[in-house]
Parts: sequence; C-alpha cells; structure tokens
Amino acid sequence: MADDTTTVATLKEAMRQFVAERDWERFHSPKNLCMGLAVEAAELMEHYLWVENEPSRRLTDDPAERGAVADEMADVACYLLALSNTLGIDLSEAVVAKLAKNAVKYPAERYRGKYRLEEDDAGASTGEGG
Amino acid sequence: MADDTTTVATLKEAMRQFVAERDWERFHSPKNLCMGLAVEAAELMEHYLWVENEPSRRLTDDPAERGAVADEMADVACYLLALSNTLGIDLSEAVVAKLAKNAVKYPAERYRGKYRLEEDDAGASTGEGG
Amino acid sequence: MADDTTTVATLKEAMRQFVAERDWERFHSPKNLCMGLAVEAAELMEHYLWVENEPSRRLTDDPAERGAVADEMADVACYLLALSNTLGIDLSEAVVAKLAKNAVKYPAERYRGKYRLEEDDAGASTGEGG
Amino acid sequence: MADDTTTVATLKEAMRQFVAERDWERFHSPKNLCMGLAVEAAELMEHYLWVENEPSRRLTDDPAERGAVADEMADVACYLLALSNTLGIDLSEAVVAKLAKNAVKYPAERYRGKYRLEEDDAGASTGEGG
Repeated sequence: MADDTTTVATLKEAMRQFVAERDWERFHSPKNLCMGLAVEAAELMEHYLWVENEPSRRLTDDPAERGAVADEMADVACYLLALSNTLGIDLSEAVVAKLAKNAVKYPAERYRGKYRLEEDDAGASTGEGG
Repeated sequence: MADDTTTVATLKEAMRQFVAERDWERFHSPKNLCMGLAVEAAELMEHYLWVENEPSRRLTDDPAERGAVADEMADVACYLLALSNTLGIDLSEAVVAKLAKNAVKYPAERYRGKYRLEEDDAGASTGEGG
Repeated sequence: MADDTTTVATLKEAMRQFVAERDWERFHSPKNLCMGLAVEAAELMEHYLWVENEPSRRLTDDPAERGAVADEMADVACYLLALSNTLGIDLSEAVVAKLAKNAVKYPAERYRGKYRLEEDDAGASTGEGG
Repeated sequence: MADDTTTVATLKEAMRQFVAERDWERFHSPKNLCMGLAVEAAELMEHYLWVENEPSRRLTDDPAERGAVADEMADVACYLLALSNTLGIDLSEAVVAKLAKNAVKYPAERYRGKYRLEEDDAGASTGEGG
C-alpha cells in the first residue's frame, strides 16, 4: 500500500474499522479527537525542538529517527482521519478548497520566495489595485 | 474531487505544486512545518474549547462552524502533506503500519469500550501471559 | 518556598541560574522556547485527553496523578520563565495588563455564567451603546 | 507592579477574582484549562513560525511585536494560574522541585553547552558509574 494508489477513503475506512472493533466511537467526540491531534502534533514537533532549521532537514537521515518521525506523522494522520469520520467531512474537498483560497490570498508572483510581504510590497499592492 | 477517488499522492502533488510556484521550499524545513502543524492543530482545537464532549458532536450542525472546522482540518492536512513531501515519507504506509502496531497494543477483545485497562484487567493480563 | 512568599523574580532567577550553569543560553532562542512551551502544554493536556470535563476535576485526587500533573505544570512554567528571561519581559506586568484588557472585553455583568454571548445578548449590546 | 515585588499568590488571586466575578468556575475544569493553555502556547509560537532561531531573538525589538508577544505570554500565564487555582497546586513548589530534579538529570559539568549527550559521552558516563 502506498500513497500513489491509496485513496483517502481507504485510510478513513481502515481507521473507522479500528475504532469500531474496539467500540471506541463513544470516546471519539470532536473535542477529544482535536485534543489528541494536538498532543500528537506536539510529540512530532518535539523531535525538532533543539535542532536548527537547516539541520532539521537531515534529522531523518538516521533510520531510527526516520521511523520515529513517520510514526508520529501517522498518529497525527489517524486522529485527522478519525475526526473526518466522526464529522462526515471530506478531507480531499477541504484540502482542494483551502489551496484554492490560499492561491488567492498568496498570489504566486508576489509571494515568490517570501512568506510575507514587506511594507513596501504591501504599499505597492494597494496601488496595483490587487 | 472527493475522498473516494482521491489518492494521497494526488493531494501531496497539489501541495507540492503550491509550494513550488511560490518558491517556498526554503521555508519548509521539517522544524518549521511541525511548528505550523501544531499551530493549526491548536486553531482547530480552539473551536471546541468551552464545549462539553457530547455537545461537541453537534457543533458542526451549524453550517458556518462546519465550514470553519473543515478549513482548519485542511490546514492541518496541508502541513502534514508538505512534511511528507519534504521528508519523502509515505503517509499511507505509515498509517497502515501504525494501525497494525496499535492493533497489537490494544487487543480489540480486551479494550472494547475502554480507552485503558483497569488495574484488575491489567492484573489479569499478566496472568494470561499476554 | 511557596506561592505566598515567592516573587516571580525569584523563580526567574532560579531558572536563569539553571540555564547559565549549563551554558544553555545559546539554545534558548525565543523560537525554541516557544516550541518547548507548546510541547509541555501538550504533555500536560494529555493527562486529560479521554477524561470528561467534570471527572477531570477529580483526576488529581490520585496522588501519583497529582504529582505528574504538577510536574508538567512546572515544565510549562519553566519555559515561560526562561522566555521572559530571554526577552526581558515582565510577566507580572503582562498578566495585570491582560486582566485589565479582558475586564473590558468581558464585562462581568454581561458575561456572568457565559463564556460567550448569545446572539440575543449581542444584539442587545449594540442597543446599549456598549 | 513588577516581577521583583509580585508574589505568585498575588497573581493567582487576581486571576481567581477575575474568574469569580464572571462565575466562570463552572467552565474552568482542568480539561478545559489545559486545552486553553495549549491554544495560547500555539498562538505565542505562531509569532516565531517562519523566523530562524537567531533572528527570533530580535523579533521583539519591534515594539508592536513586543507588545503582542507579551500579550500571548500573559494568556499562557493566566491559564496556568487558573489551573493552579482549580487544582490547588503550589506553582513555586512545583518549579523548585522540577529544577532540583532536572539538576540531577542534567549534571551541569556534563551538559555544559550541550542539550544532549553524544554517544561517546553517554558511553563514558556508564564507565563513570554515574
């Protein structure tokens, strides 16, 4: 199984089944699932706590770290899949809609190589009639 | 586009392209992406902050809340997709491996309806040679 | 030592000394300290993940849980103290200013027993010239 | 009011009063307060998201950023104070106990300038009978 051939629905169904087999739907309120997601996101982040940005790109060259990081990413993904199951929200639609929204918010030509505009750019943008 | 027909690779590719068009790979160190993921997880969680568990299931009956929650979930997903792009980690493989690991850690028959074992159960489990 | 007689400056100084003895100022950039703070906040939250709101008030009746929760709260506090050392920010002033700001944002008489106003209240507030 | 002369108990009392005036104790379960703390920690962290470690030290040279960061730090502090009120936990004691514990875990002479030991150091430590 791999990202090239696995649909999001297949992963959601695997998660749904895992939860159903344990009768855990009662614990899977959105409030709890969001908390779990935030906890796992923090555990993932902890791997990168004292590392500088550039060296952080090479942390997972070490196979043990790579396995541990993949494991934490899976935990985050599982909570996100469980939440989309509980709420009946289509993740693919949500992602595509968000990228479309962000494409308008961050026009490629103006944000190229910048994560935010300098004041000069911002001033210019007003004049451009954006 | 919907979860039934969308592969994880398709979403990763959409994210990769969004980043490439803005030349943002330079900002997308794993350290930064994990921070961003944790920030978005917290924004999602904020929607459920003062709500009780059971009512939290109905928060998204309100269409505006539903849209906002889907939007935050997409933000979390986008950072996770970006991170898997940066690290070259296969998310589907990681999720399937994690569910298999958790199936061993939480045997369905013993964890049914429980998120953790009581001491009695734990004692029994020792006796079982589990 | 106890909250009644300990100033915030005393705790900040204890933290500063701990860091200086290890020559750790180099790691204590605001970026890293904020990440550490968020990691510890998540570890604290994990204790309450599957617990309902009301029972969460009694979790620390158990002495082992009480010790563990106090320990996580201390971790959060240490990062906050370290950050205020690094940035030269006065925590007491910041807290007092924030409470004053929130007293205006959430007038006691209108928010009594409510964490947010219903639409009716909000409508009324407009009429009041609030 | 400033850190030099303000006891932790004074801040806790200010927070307790703010909550009591609004009859908000009902919302201040430990579960909710931990969530709120994690949300505020993430908002603080967001200020440092795309900034490199070294430049992050200078972000608050800008007065507006300094005010915003102090404000987020106060939010984190308020939730921590509220939690220690709800649980009856003495923060100063917890911090002092934690620093004592960490002084043993991270002996100053061996961790000087390092956030973790290299394998060589770790090996040596075994030989030392540490």
